[in-house]
Amino acid sequence: MSGNTIGVLFKVTTWGESHGPATGAIIDGCPPRIDLSEADIQKELDRRRPGTLSSSSPRREEDHVEILSGIFEGKTTGTPISLLIRNRDMHSDAYEGLRDLFRPGHGDISYQAKYGIRDHRGGGRASGRETAARVAAGAVARKVIAPAGITIAAWTKELGGITARLHSLTAAETSPLRCPDPEAEKRMVARLEEARAAGDTLGGIVEIIVRGCPPGLGEPVFGKIDADLAGALMGIGTVKGVEIGAGFAAARMSGSTCNDPIGPEGFRTNHAGGILAGITSGAEIVIRVACKPIPSIAHPQETIDTQGRPAVITVGGRHDASVIPRIIPVCEAMVAIVLADHLMRQRTLSI
Amino acid sequence: MSGNTIGVLFKVTTWGESHGPATGAIIDGCPPRIDLSEADIQKELDRRRPGTLSSSSPRREEDHVEILSGIFEGKTTGTPISLLIRNRDMHSDAYEGLRDLFRPGHGDISYQAKYGIRDHRGGGRASGRETAARVAAGAVARKVIAPAGITIAAWTKELGGITARLHSLTAAETSPLRCPDPEAEKRMVARLEEARAAGDTLGGIVEIIVRGCPPGLGEPVFGKIDADLAGALMGIGTVKGVEIGAGFAAARMSGSTCNDPIGPEGFRTNHAGGILAGITSGAEIVIRVACKPIPSIAHPQETIDTQGRPAVITVGGRHDASVIPRIIPVCEAMVAIVLADHLMRQRTLSI
Amino acid sequence: MSGNTIGVLFKVTTWGESHGPATGAIIDGCPPRIDLSEADIQKELDRRRPGTLSSSSPRREEDHVEILSGIFEGKTTGTPISLLIRNRDMHSDAYEGLRDLFRPGHGDISYQAKYGIRDHRGGGRASGRETAARVAAGAVARKVIAPAGITIAAWTKELGGITARLHSLTAAETSPLRCPDPEAEKRMVARLEEARAAGDTLGGIVEIIVRGCPPGLGEPVFGKIDADLAGALMGIGTVKGVEIGAGFAAARMSGSTCNDPIGPEGFRTNHAGGILAGITSGAEIVIRVACKPIPSIAHPQETIDTQGRPAVITVGGRHDASVIPRIIPVCEAMVAIVLADHLMRQRTLSI
Amino acid sequence: MSGNTIGVLFKVTTWGESHGPATGAIIDGCPPRIDLSEADIQKELDRRRPGTLSSSSPRREEDHVEILSGIFEGKTTGTPISLLIRNRDMHSDAYEGLRDLFRPGHGDISYQAKYGIRDHRGGGRASGRETAARVAAGAVARKVIAPAGITIAAWTKELGGITARLHSLTAAETSPLRCPDPEAEKRMVARLEEARAAGDTLGGIVEIIVRGCPPGLGEPVFGKIDADLAGALMGIGTVKGVEIGAGFAAARMSGSTCNDPIGPEGFRTNHAGGILAGITSGAEIVIRVACKPIPSIAHPQETIDTQGRPAVITVGGRHDASVIPRIIPVCEAMVAIVLADHLMRQRTLSI
Repeated sequence: MSGNTIGVLFKVTTWGESHGPATGAIIDGCPPRIDLSEADIQKELDRRRPGTLSSSSPRREEDHVEILSGIFEGKTTGTPISLLIRNRDMHSDAYEGLRDLFRPGHGDISYQAKYGIRDHRGGGRASGRETAARVAAGAVARKVIAPAGITIAAWTKELGGITARLHSLTAAETSPLRCPDPEAEKRMVARLEEARAAGDTLGGIVEIIVRGCPPGLGEPVFGKIDADLAGALMGIGTVKGVEIGAGFAAARMSGSTCNDPIGPEGFRTNHAGGILAGITSGAEIVIRVACKPIPSIAHPQETIDTQGRPAVITVGGRHDASVIPRIIPVCEAMVAIVLADHLMRQRTLSI
Repeated sequence: MSGNTIGVLFKVTTWGESHGPATGAIIDGCPPRIDLSEADIQKELDRRRPGTLSSSSPRREEDHVEILSGIFEGKTTGTPISLLIRNRDMHSDAYEGLRDLFRPGHGDISYQAKYGIRDHRGGGRASGRETAARVAAGAVARKVIAPAGITIAAWTKELGGITARLHSLTAAETSPLRCPDPEAEKRMVARLEEARAAGDTLGGIVEIIVRGCPPGLGEPVFGKIDADLAGALMGIGTVKGVEIGAGFAAARMSGSTCNDPIGPEGFRTNHAGGILAGITSGAEIVIRVACKPIPSIAHPQETIDTQGRPAVITVGGRHDASVIPRIIPVCEAMVAIVLADHLMRQRTLSI
Repeated sequence: MSGNTIGVLFKVTTWGESHGPATGAIIDGCPPRIDLSEADIQKELDRRRPGTLSSSSPRREEDHVEILSGIFEGKTTGTPISLLIRNRDMHSDAYEGLRDLFRPGHGDISYQAKYGIRDHRGGGRASGRETAARVAAGAVARKVIAPAGITIAAWTKELGGITARLHSLTAAETSPLRCPDPEAEKRMVARLEEARAAGDTLGGIVEIIVRGCPPGLGEPVFGKIDADLAGALMGIGTVKGVEIGAGFAAARMSGSTCNDPIGPEGFRTNHAGGILAGITSGAEIVIRVACKPIPSIAHPQETIDTQGRPAVITVGGRHDASVIPRIIPVCEAMVAIVLADHLMRQRTLSI
Repeated sequence: MSGNTIGVLFKVTTWGESHGPATGAIIDGCPPRIDLSEADIQKELDRRRPGTLSSSSPRREEDHVEILSGIFEGKTTGTPISLLIRNRDMHSDAYEGLRDLFRPGHGDISYQAKYGIRDHRGGGRASGRETAARVAAGAVARKVIAPAGITIAAWTKELGGITARLHSLTAAETSPLRCPDPEAEKRMVARLEEARAAGDTLGGIVEIIVRGCPPGLGEPVFGKIDADLAGALMGIGTVKGVEIGAGFAAARMSGSTCNDPIGPEGFRTNHAGGILAGITSGAEIVIRVACKPIPSIAHPQETIDTQGRPAVITVGGRHDASVIPRIIPVCEAMVAIVLADHLMRQRTLSI
C-alpha cells in the first residue's frame, strides 16, 4: 500500500474527488479469462447506495459504472481494467462557506497541513464518496476469489451501543441495516432516528466473516495477511480499530484458553480468527472494525479557520446518521481485494 | 509491505530463523550523514532482552549486533545498512519431538500449509526471535525521526486483566514491566508468577504514544498513516487488535462527543488519536495493541501431526510468561519505521 | 516498473486498448500546487499526432484529453490525476480478418501465449495507441521537473539508414521529421515515400538530450538512473536498443580515451552521457534508441493461425511508414517520467 | 527496481561496500522446497573470480559464501535467503590518496553530489565488488528457472575491437576469455597484454543467450521483459548500451526484412530476439551489452578535488585490464534474476 494503490499482484488504484467530474479505479493484474460485466460491478455499487431509511443521506448518486478497458467480449484480458463512475447530483455550493474553515473530525486540517491546498467541496479526496471506487474494484476481486470457494460477508454487530447477535449471514444481507437480529435492528433504527432528529450521528461495529479461504495465504513478517487486512480496513475513513478473532478479548485470556486445540476435523475453537503467524489456517476468518460516528453533524462546533483564528462551524451538506450500513460493502470490498492479491501471490510458490 | 520488507523509501527487510546461524536486517534508503554506531542499536536490543523477573525466558541471547555496511567513519552513507545478529545459546534438540506436530496457537500448521516445508525448531521464521531484527532496524529509524522532534514511547496498559494508569512515560521506561503504575505493576507481577507456576501465559494491552510528530504525514486512501501503523503493528506475531485514539470506544460515541473541537492552541480533545483522514494532525498519536498470551504453554494440548492424526503435545523450550514487557520495544520499533518512511515521503512534496 | 505502472514516487499507470472505448493514465504522487491545465497536456498530445506527410497514418485521432481528478482551481492537489482520452475514428472491422492470425513482428502471438485471450483489434493493449497516455502523463512530469531547470528534447538522428547531424534542437522541433538537418531530412522524406509506395516501413534512431539536470539523481545498484531510463525506453514497443553517452562505441575505446577528464568548469568530454555509476553527474544526458520498422506492412507474410496452421497474412489498417517522428514525444515523455520520479526521490535525502 | 532491490516476487537486495567488512544479498520470495547448498552458489562465484591471465586483477578474494537463513535441511523454505560474503585481502591504504579526489570515469563525483558523503575506498558501494552479491543471488535464480528448462549463457563477442564468432556456447565456457573463437581469443589476449603494459584498459561486447524460455513471460507496457532485462543489464556499472535481437541494426532494416515470418515449427528468423511486444515468444532470447573500458587506468588524469580545485590523479589499486570475462557471470546473473521473477509472475495468472 502506498499513495492510492493497494496490492502487489492484484493492484487497485482509486482516484477522484467528491465534487470533481468523476471517480474511478484501475485494477492492474487481474487474471485473464474471467467473465466480467458492468452488471457484476453495478450489483455491488447498488449495495452501497443510501438506503431508504429516513436516517440515510438524501444525496442520490446513481453510481453508474462504465468499464473502459481490460475486457474483451465479456472476459478479462489480463490488461488493466479501468472503471469510471461519473459524479452527479453534486451541490457544491453548499460547501462554499466551508472553504476556509476546518470541520472537526474531518481531514480538512490535516490535508491542508500536508498539501498546502485542498478541494474543500465535500471533503475532496477524503470523502466517503471515494469508497464507491473501492466497492467497484472489490466486485472484480470477488470474481477472482470466487472460483477458490471464498465468500465474504459482513454484518452490523453493534450500532449506537446496541449489540446484535448473528443468526444467519443471509438474514443480514436482506435487512435494511445489514443486521441479522431483528429485535436489535428495531432498536438500532429507533436510535438512529433519535440521533438524526438531534442533528447527531452514531458509530458502530461491523464484523466481517470469510468462509472457504484456503490455508496458506499470507507471507512472513511484513506481508502477513492479518497485517494487510488490518491496514486495508484501518484505511477506511471511518475505522478507528480492527481486531481479528478474539481480538482485544485475547488480551485478557490465558494461553490455555486462547489456544485453539486442533483435531483431525479442524480447529475446536477459533480465537485465532482463522490466521496463525500471519498465514491463513483454513478456519473461518473473523474480523471486527470499530466505526466512529460520521463527523458531519448539524451542531455548531468550535474550530479555526485557515488563518488559525477561532470560529464556529455548522456543517451543511447531506449526510447519513451513521456509516452503517453503507460501510458494509466497503469493508467486504477491502477484504476481497486483499484476499485476491494473496491468493495470486500464493500461486507463485508452485515452481 | 510485502514478504519480508516494509516501507517505500525507508525500507526494512528482515531475515533469519530462530535456530539458524543468525538473524538480521537490511535498511535501504536511510538518509546519509546521520551519526550511527553499533551502540545506538545495541541500546535498543538491550531493552528487548529477557528481564530479570522469574517469569522471563531463561534463554540468554546476547543479541550482539554487527553493522556490515552503509556506515563510513561513523555516519550513514545512504547505501544499505546491513545488520547481523548471530544466534547463540540455541537448544534445538528441545524441539526435535515437535518436528511432526503442530503446536496450537503457533504458525506451525499454517506455514506447513503454505510452504510444504518448515524449520520446526523454535518456530523458525515465525519465532519472536525475528523481532530482534525489527528492533535493530527501529533503532536506525529513531535516528531518522529524532531531528524532526518525534519521540515514541510505549507502556503496559493492561496485563492479565489488570489495568494500569499512565502517570509518566519516564516511569514506564524504568519499571521492570514498563508499567508506570507501581501498584498495578505489583499485582501484574504476582499474576505472572501465578501463571508461570501453572505453566500458563497471559496477554495484555500496550499503548504507544508518539509526541512531536509534525502534521501532514500519511497519504490518501491506501497509504494512510493509520493504515500503515495498523498493518505494521498487526504484523507483530502476538497482536490480535489495534486501535487508534478512542478506538473501539468511538463506536459507542455520538458525533458531537467524538469530534475533537479545534482551537487556536490545538485540539481540545484527542479522540482521533492524532490522525484525521489518514494524515497526522499534529496532535499526540495514541495507539493500543492487544497482545494474546504466548501460545507456548506447559499444559498438554490436543493437536494433530503432519499426517493429520490426533496427538497430544507438550511444548518444551524456554519461554516468557507474557510477551509483555519484551514486546514494547518491538511496538516502538514498528512505529518508528513507519514514521521514518512517511517523514521521508513527505519531504518529496516540496518541489 | 511492473505491469502497467512506472515510478516509485511519481507513479504513472496507463490503461486502455486501441479499439476500446478510451485510453488514459493515472498519475499518483504528483506534488501539489503545480499549475496544470488540459491545455498543458493537449500541447504534448498534439505533438504526437500523425503529421501531414503522405507517409503518415490517415487515422485521425483528436486525442482530446479530459482531466477527471487531482486538480482544484487550476492547480494540482497532490491526489491522483486521472486523464481520459476517448478513442474515436476506430475502424475495428478492418481487423476482423486478423482475429485468428498472428501478425509477424507484432505481439499477437506472445499475448496469446501469455493470456490465452487477446483483443485482436488494432493490437489491443500492445498498440502504439497506448503511447498517447504516456505522452499525456509525460506532460505532467515536465511540469514537475521544469522548476529544477530540466529540459528534454529528442531528434531524429537516423531514418532508413540516412544519418543527420545536430545543429540545433530548436530546428528539430519545427521540422516535419523532427530532424534538424534539412538536407538529410529531404532524403529521409524521399526514402519514406519510396517505402510507403512499396508497402514497406523503415526504422531509425532517435537521440534524447537532457539539459539542466542536477547532479545526484539515481540510486545505487538497482535504482540507477541509466537502468531506469534504459528500462523506460526499451519498454516502448518499437525500441530494440538503448545506449547512453558513447554507448556501443565505448566498447571499442580504451580507458584513457573513454574517461572524461574533469576540470573546475565541468567535464571536458561526455562519453559517459551525463551518468556516472548510475547517478547523474551534472553533464548533459545523452541517450539514443534504435527503433525497428513498424511491423504492419502491406506485403503478404507467412504466419500461422491460432491453431498453429500455416497461413498467409496481409495486414490492413492505417499505419505510418515509420514510427519516426511520432515516437519522439513518447521518448521524451518516458525520460520526463523517470526524471520526475528521481528528482522527487532525491528530495527525500535532505533529512 | 528501486534503491538496492530488484524484482516483484523474486526480490534480490544487495548490500556492502568494497572495503567494508562484507557484502551480501537477501533473496526474498524464493519458492520453497528447492535444493540449495552453498556449493551451488560457490560454483557461480568461482566463475567470477579473477582469471589466471596476467591482465587479471591480482586481488585474490576467495569470495566464500555463507548461507545464513532460508534453508532447512538442504532445501529452501520460502523465507528470505541471506547470503554473506566477507571481504578479505583489502588494501584500503592504497586509496588514502584518493580520499579528496574524483577519479574520472568513476562514480566518485556523482556519489559525492548525491549523498554529500562517500566511502572512497575502492569505490565503496559503486565498486565492481558489489557484483559478487549479484552473482550469488543469480545462482539461486538459476535454481528457480532450471526446472522450466531455461538455460542462460553469455560469451565474449568483441574485446578491444576484435570480433569473435559463436561456434558453441560450451566452448565459451571453457575458454579463459569466455570466447568460443580460439583465433579471435588469441588476438584478444595479445591486445589485453598490450593494454596492460600501457597502463590502459579495454571495452567489449558480451552476448547473452537464453534457451528454453517459455513463451508468455513479461507484462504489458511498464513490466515488459525487454524493459526489465535492459534495466537490469544497464544497471551493471560497466554497461553503456543494451540491444535485443537485431538491436541497432533493426534501425536500418525495412519492415519486410525485419519481421520474423512464423511457421508451424516456429519463427523463421529471430530479429526480434525472442521478445514481441515485451513478452517472450518462445524463440531464443538474444541480448548484447556494450561494456566500457574499466576507468581505473595507470595514466595521470586531469580531475578536481572535493573543493573543486584542479588536480592530477593517478589511480592505484589492483585492477583488471578489462571487465571481460569477469562480467560474464554478472550478466548471466542479472538475466537469471529477471527471468525467475517473471516466471513466478506468470504463474499467478492461472486462476
